[in-house]
Amino acid sequence: MGLVQPHTLHVDQPLELECGRQLPSCDLVYETYGNLNASASNAVLICHALSGHHHAAGYHSMDEKRPGWWDSCIGPGKPIDTNRFFVVCLNNLGGCHGSSGPTSTNPETGQLWGPDFPMMTVKDWVKSQARLADALGIEQWAAVVGGSLGGMQALQWAIDFPDRLRHAVVIAAAPKLSAQNIAFNEVARQSILTDPNFHGGRYYLHDTYPRQGLILARMVGHITYLSDDAMRMKFGRDLRSGRFHFGFDVEFQVESYLRHQGETFSRNFDANTYLLMTKALDYFDPAREQGGTLEQALERTRCGFLVMSFNSDWRFSPERSREIVNALTHVGRDVSYAEIDTPKGHDAFLLPIPEYVKLLGAYLRRVADEVDADGQ
Amino acid sequence: MGLVQPHTLHVDQPLELECGRQLPSCDLVYETYGNLNASASNAVLICHALSGHHHAAGYHSMDEKRPGWWDSCIGPGKPIDTNRFFVVCLNNLGGCHGSSGPTSTNPETGQLWGPDFPMMTVKDWVKSQARLADALGIEQWAAVVGGSLGGMQALQWAIDFPDRLRHAVVIAAAPKLSAQNIAFNEVARQSILTDPNFHGGRYYLHDTYPRQGLILARMVGHITYLSDDAMRMKFGRDLRSGRFHFGFDVEFQVESYLRHQGETFSRNFDANTYLLMTKALDYFDPAREQGGTLEQALERTRCGFLVMSFNSDWRFSPERSREIVNALTHVGRDVSYAEIDTPKGHDAFLLPIPEYVKLLGAYLRRVADEVDADGQ
Repeated sequence: MGLVQPHTLHVDQPLELECGRQLPSCDLVYETYGNLNASASNAVLICHALSGHHHAAGYHSMDEKRPGWWDSCIGPGKPIDTNRFFVVCLNNLGGCHGSSGPTSTNPETGQLWGPDFPMMTVKDWVKSQARLADALGIEQWAAVVGGSLGGMQALQWAIDFPDRLRHAVVIAAAPKLSAQNIAFNEVARQSILTDPNFHGGRYYLHDTYPRQGLILARMVGHITYLSDDAMRMKFGRDLRSGRFHFGFDVEFQVESYLRHQGETFSRNFDANTYLLMTKALDYFDPAREQGGTLEQALERTRCGFLVMSFNSDWRFSPERSREIVNALTHVGRDVSYAEIDTPKGHDAFLLPIPEYVKLLGAYLRRVADEVDADGQ
Repeated sequence: MGLVQPHTLHVDQPLELECGRQLPSCDLVYETYGNLNASASNAVLICHALSGHHHAAGYHSMDEKRPGWWDSCIGPGKPIDTNRFFVVCLNNLGGCHGSSGPTSTNPETGQLWGPDFPMMTVKDWVKSQARLADALGIEQWAAVVGGSLGGMQALQWAIDFPDRLRHAVVIAAAPKLSAQNIAFNEVARQSILTDPNFHGGRYYLHDTYPRQGLILARMVGHITYLSDDAMRMKFGRDLRSGRFHFGFDVEFQVESYLRHQGETFSRNFDANTYLLMTKALDYFDPAREQGGTLEQALERTRCGFLVMSFNSDWRFSPERSREIVNALTHVGRDVSYAEIDTPKGHDAFLLPIPEYVKLLGAYLRRVADEVDADGQ
């Protein structure tokens, strides 16, 4: 995509949230790639996952070392082809990359929101994303696309705004978290909440931050993003120095890697945001909301679906994707399903795995063709 | 078993350890159940797992609420039948239940060992267990039996003292930890090591202890002891109060359960011991020690083997047990293998699952018959 830059939408109308509170106004930071066509029918919304943000493709400056987080899939001639689509990606509310969240200022008090920022849900995010669509003049998305927590947003779009998207692409997601998923989130949260530097979420007033809690949270999270096989291939039981030291310093490469992942993450992410994001995952359960069954929830949808999973993903295994596929089939929706063979685990959804990229590209080419045909 | 009581063996000869250090003397706390026969040929050694101890069966007093940790399998007429076997279970060195370890006194300094207690390995434990066998006049165990880390000790016995056991029973174990296993241990260790109350392991000098670190360590450990299915059946997405609160207090039952498990454990276990036990797991790798392959390591064994695994165990999956079985078969050992169908996960090895208990009992009955036949 070359050089790109973020934009900010200031939303003045209050946003009613699922938790019962209200955001009187908010900022949404977003990026766009490609051009919106005259009928505004070629827009694709990218929803980000737990630690993602609006910077999905291209570079912010010539000095930026890495492009946006999904640059492998977004750009001219790529699966999400910016020669054909107008691609939009925003930082979700509660995030820490520019949209209103714990690290931004509460306009009513002039203070940082910190732990007082309202709890967000997938439904709230979708509602706020609809405001962005309104502002951009997009009545209907050609597709809403996301992996993991982003896939849950795509699914929620299909339920909450059935007429405002043609297609939902739901990758490496689940219709709700399992008890084990919630348990891992709870360990991550407790790591942060009990860090003595957390100060009830007001660490910024104490000129500190719960670094160690964030490191632990990310370490445990990271284990669930990789498959056992991926870790075996990447590290096995390799030692950092070729022999045992019989101490608590790093002995195995995998220990070094995990600590590094945790430390890097802790420097770039806000603890209050991490807590909010894990709770949004826990709360996601459209079946519960619509009376009990996933079929009942999906009965409202109108769009076409592409559901994708990865056979080594044990965080949201293919079985969880098939629950979505089966419920969609049961209510008569058009649904394509692909289970990609890869050892990369949950993280696979971010990687340029040839079969994955090819199938995603093929589906979206058909979406673009459909949009073109409709415009003629 | 009714009322039982622990004994202490004081070992005066120095114990050379794998880490290169030496324990000049040590105490081993153990219990025995049943009677040793005249030829001392009916003794069974039980090796405990990460958080276990010597109290495997019976009650210490009429007030004790729960019997020893493997009471379901040890006793008159039970799979490890005390009418036929003399059963011995000890607290491993480095433990916190009476044997020499971080919470006991270093005889050379008169101070608590604390973090200065030497790093232990499975090989060291087996060597110390052989001292206990010597003291009890047991030249050869009828069987050495253990689950998880205890199963690794049984395997190490077969390698290090091939003539001192007739049978090894290796349950829910692995021939070495995977990168993922090590990663989970590392998260647990980092939780403890970075707890501000850890004080480099000398918390007892500061009148405190790394409670929160131990809680987190146990929470993450506990997730790996249960299967996803077991958690689903036990908790699903049940809410503690029937509705969402949109806060960081407990919402789901599984959160409440995990916190409770962590808190209970933190009150009853020593942090330095927990660190040592996880390192012993990481270091276990008989193949590495014997030149590279598991077959080479097992070439030295002479005993019969029963290997058991549980199909829902993802900590040490059946695949890991089959690695042991295949290597044993390759070197021509007598090996029986059973994969038990249960949703209980790794924890299954501690539970009275009918098929498991039946197969274990059947194997050990044959061992007892063999001992009897030899004595005649």
